[in-house]
Amino acid sequence: MTATTKPMLETYPQPINLDRAALAGAIDALIACSEACTACADACLSEGMVAELTKCIRTNMDCADICATTARVLSRHTGYDANVSRALLEACMMACAACADECGRHADTHEHCRICATACREAERACRDLLDSMR
Amino acid sequence: MTATTKPMLETYPQPINLDRAALAGAIDALIACSEACTACADACLSEGMVAELTKCIRTNMDCADICATTARVLSRHTGYDANVSRALLEACMMACAACADECGRHADTHEHCRICATACREAERACRDLLDSMR
Amino acid sequence: MTATTKPMLETYPQPINLDRAALAGAIDALIACSEACTACADACLSEGMVAELTKCIRTNMDCADICATTARVLSRHTGYDANVSRALLEACMMACAACADECGRHADTHEHCRICATACREAERACRDLLDSMR
Amino acid sequence: MTATTKPMLETYPQPINLDRAALAGAIDALIACSEACTACADACLSEGMVAELTKCIRTNMDCADICATTARVLSRHTGYDANVSRALLEACMMACAACADECGRHADTHEHCRICATACREAERACRDLLDSMR
Repeated sequence: MTATTKPMLETYPQPINLDRAALAGAIDALIACSEACTACADACLSEGMVAELTKCIRTNMDCADICATTARVLSRHTGYDANVSRALLEACMMACAACADECGRHADTHEHCRICATACREAERACRDLLDSMR
Repeated sequence: MTATTKPMLETYPQPINLDRAALAGAIDALIACSEACTACADACLSEGMVAELTKCIRTNMDCADICATTARVLSRHTGYDANVSRALLEACMMACAACADECGRHADTHEHCRICATACREAERACRDLLDSMR
Repeated sequence: MTATTKPMLETYPQPINLDRAALAGAIDALIACSEACTACADACLSEGMVAELTKCIRTNMDCADICATTARVLSRHTGYDANVSRALLEACMMACAACADECGRHADTHEHCRICATACREAERACRDLLDSMR
Repeated sequence: MTATTKPMLETYPQPINLDRAALAGAIDALIACSEACTACADACLSEGMVAELTKCIRTNMDCADICATTARVLSRHTGYDANVSRALLEACMMACAACADECGRHADTHEHCRICATACREAERACRDLLDSMR
């Protein structure tokens, strides 16, 4: 867990109408997933069989971008708009699930895909937990 | 319109199962909106009445991040996943509409908010056009 | 040229201690370059000879990220810090030059690399023009 | 420390010509700093005295963007270009130092600025350690 996520949430000067533990969990899982996807895209690029990994690379790049943006939106509480957060969380869960599936297909051959698939599943679950707590 | 968006689409080496004109229109509108929102957040920050513009600044920052990420995802065609694109377009339209509304509230007072609200409406419409063409 | 970059610069409510034409030119060239690099990375990924394009893809991804971030920093004028802008422009020019060189190596074979190399050269030159105007 | 940064580095399929411990340390410090800066910008925005924090907000936004991009570039090893990494690390250290200074000015009044200044100092130091190991 990123050392600063929770302390930063705790020092926000106004009330936050969200479960702070679920929020911190989602932000940290998204950051870790984004980093894993960036690294996995690059590791795939260095594999001899890169031609069989092009869909995986693309899915990794999308998931990295979407998770990074979702983490940023969730880190802002001023002028909070639940509809934007919800719609983005739905899109992000879809990207995480797609990337977990795709990396999962190569998990037996490539350890980086196995680790990345796990990070995607954790991010997907953390987004679902947060979304559930918002209803 | 960005000079390179359409030529890059036309030189993609595989078929693209999307209306290329709608796609180029969406990418360019998203890029322009992202840039306008980044600039509007900063312009709001320099207004004497910044305390009344904090929701506008936050909404601008979200919209800038979400539009930039959506433009990237739409610029990738390898291993295309219609479900991720659709969900992200929905979230992006919601962010654009929210930012257009918020900037619209300050359009009479701040010219940068007026221009930004227009850019958000155009991005929202371009996303809807693309989404319609995908059905 | 993005329709909103110049109008947004003109409506910034405080003085900007930079040549506004050079600034708008740099922001627009960086945005166009970032978009071209994102698209070129993806087009390379779909080429049959992708295994020979892995360095090009990586260089494209770096250049896309660095240009996007530089465009954002240049779009903010509040609390301006010339040292950060200068150091980032230097790094960005290096990334653009590296990507122009690498894409240039494949320009005869791949039209997307040719277009992207041109966008990188234009971004490099626009950054240099801005940097020169800052001295 | 992000749980996946080190395992991902260890499963990269080719040699990495960098000190892996220094590399993982820099990536994790940059990710934590980027997240802290995004949250600090938003917390500043919600303070009653926001008008006195506009330079801090801007510096936070720049530092968040530059650290996120630097972490991504450092997470890629394929087609590595030491010159781009070095120039970007220099720019990033400058952004981290500027943000640490600015947040440091408000550290006695705002706990979020105090935490963020520490994260910026750690990122600056981790970048310097990596840069030193590259020479």
